[in-house]
Amino acid sequence: MTDVLSPAQFVSEVAFNADGLVPVIAQRVQTGEILMFAWMTKETLEHTLQTGEVTYFSRSRSRVWRKGEESGHTQRLVEAWIDCDGDVLLMKVDQIGPACHTGAPTCFFRRAGIKPDV
Amino acid sequence: MTDVLSPAQFVSEVAFNADGLVPVIAQRVQTGEILMFAWMTKETLEHTLQTGEVTYFSRSRSRVWRKGEESGHTQRLVEAWIDCDGDVLLMKVDQIGPACHTGAPTCFFRRAGIKPDV
Repeated sequence: MTDVLSPAQFVSEVAFNADGLVPVIAQRVQTGEILMFAWMTKETLEHTLQTGEVTYFSRSRSRVWRKGEESGHTQRLVEAWIDCDGDVLLMKVDQIGPACHTGAPTCFFRRAGIKPDV
Repeated sequence: MTDVLSPAQFVSEVAFNADGLVPVIAQRVQTGEILMFAWMTKETLEHTLQTGEVTYFSRSRSRVWRKGEESGHTQRLVEAWIDCDGDVLLMKVDQIGPACHTGAPTCFFRRAGIKPDV
């Protein structure tokens, strides 16, 4: 059921948006917990696949951003997945320290209180 | 560590983009598997929280799209989470049948073959 692509094939399958970016979901490989959501360019994706150092493009700062470069809270790539349309990536990572800039383990620490029967 | 918001507070915390959309990650609640990635409007988010019927906005068809409305492969909301910046949602769902339009259990069925030591 799983198709395995070479890193070059993988990159060529990505449908980058008009800004040259693709959204990336980062998931803790050990637990399946969703850690964060960010963006990559072709170059940061290639760097990530080649080195295992998960590296994004910061839209707010308009620059390459190696996760943890300041905080030390790096991500090491374990598995890279691409969706059916090629327009979203999923990176399963080994996260050092908290993933969120707030210091929370993951960026998803707020939930809706909904009835269990909805 | 978890903040619980009322559904109304939850919706008010969402930073919809210029098109009135917010990206949504759908995760199988039982396994942590990432199923798909799609978009919601304020209205489809409210419908999802109120009814538990996970409902997106299809950008390609420019219309509301209740997941599974044609295929029967519906998603029932179990937990709704929002990230630190309010610009990404995570829905933990009970998925009926395959999540992907290709018939695959999840949209992420292709991975990069990378060395285990990267």
